[in-house]
Amino acid sequence: MMQHQNPVEDAFHIRKLEISDKEKGFIELLRQLTVCDSVSDEKFNERFEEIANYGDDHRICVIEDVRSGKIVATGSVFIEKKFVRNCGKAGHIEDVVVDSSARGLQLGKRIVEYLADHAHSMGCYKVILDCTEENRPFYEKCGFKKKEIQMVKYFV
Amino acid sequence: MMQHQNPVEDAFHIRKLEISDKEKGFIELLRQLTVCDSVSDEKFNERFEEIANYGDDHRICVIEDVRSGKIVATGSVFIEKKFVRNCGKAGHIEDVVVDSSARGLQLGKRIVEYLADHAHSMGCYKVILDCTEENRPFYEKCGFKKKEIQMVKYFV
Repeated sequence: MMQHQNPVEDAFHIRKLEISDKEKGFIELLRQLTVCDSVSDEKFNERFEEIANYGDDHRICVIEDVRSGKIVATGSVFIEKKFVRNCGKAGHIEDVVVDSSARGLQLGKRIVEYLADHAHSMGCYKVILDCTEENRPFYEKCGFKKKEIQMVKYFV
Repeated sequence: MMQHQNPVEDAFHIRKLEISDKEKGFIELLRQLTVCDSVSDEKFNERFEEIANYGDDHRICVIEDVRSGKIVATGSVFIEKKFVRNCGKAGHIEDVVVDSSARGLQLGKRIVEYLADHAHSMGCYKVILDCTEENRPFYEKCGFKKKEIQMVKYFV
């Protein structure tokens, strides 16, 4: 019996960040999250390579809208190696954003599940992230629970 | 004019984690923070080398009680490379603990300041950490402010 295809999954392809994604609106998407000026190709490529050097220890995933060829969602996770928890590992999810035109399609949930699955497959005993109180219900739907508070010190 | 020496700074030496610190009570100290069974020398050395491979991007610092030769405080920071904030970097402080017998000597503050200074020197635009509401006043004294909430998903 043929499997029914999910039209949303067909239209939106989730995968690792590729160097060509700069031309597909990746930086413009990040700008919906926080301050991010134009980045030169040289600077982008340099940072891309720096992150790629971490291999599976730093994964950035994106969702591409297959019809438009635009990146409409992204998020990252990096694997921290610890001594606690019997030399355990912890995944840190960062910089999750869905394009304002593509909300309501569960793309954020797919991103977070992809990143949590990656952390799990890397042997992490937990995956953590920081978010606003407003976004708490979304992450609860993704299987997360509130634990501590985040403290920050800015240098600029 | 000779500088007056700070007796606490003389008695407690802050520095990078060394591989010989396993013999100085480093794992026992971590056990005051969270679950950490006995770690074999082989496993310790392997994890030490994995972290050392990150160079300045993952710094673990310790304070040694010079008289006893014991590690009485520790903390770590790793540098996350981002695309946001114009290809900025963020420091993540983790696993800060002071030995129960050495509280009240401001060793925790020295650890956090050392780690924040390291993140700053690495070009981070911010340094972040997660803590309990109970530890918030301590981190405020270290120059941190509450920002978001921490969410966690455990795999074990």
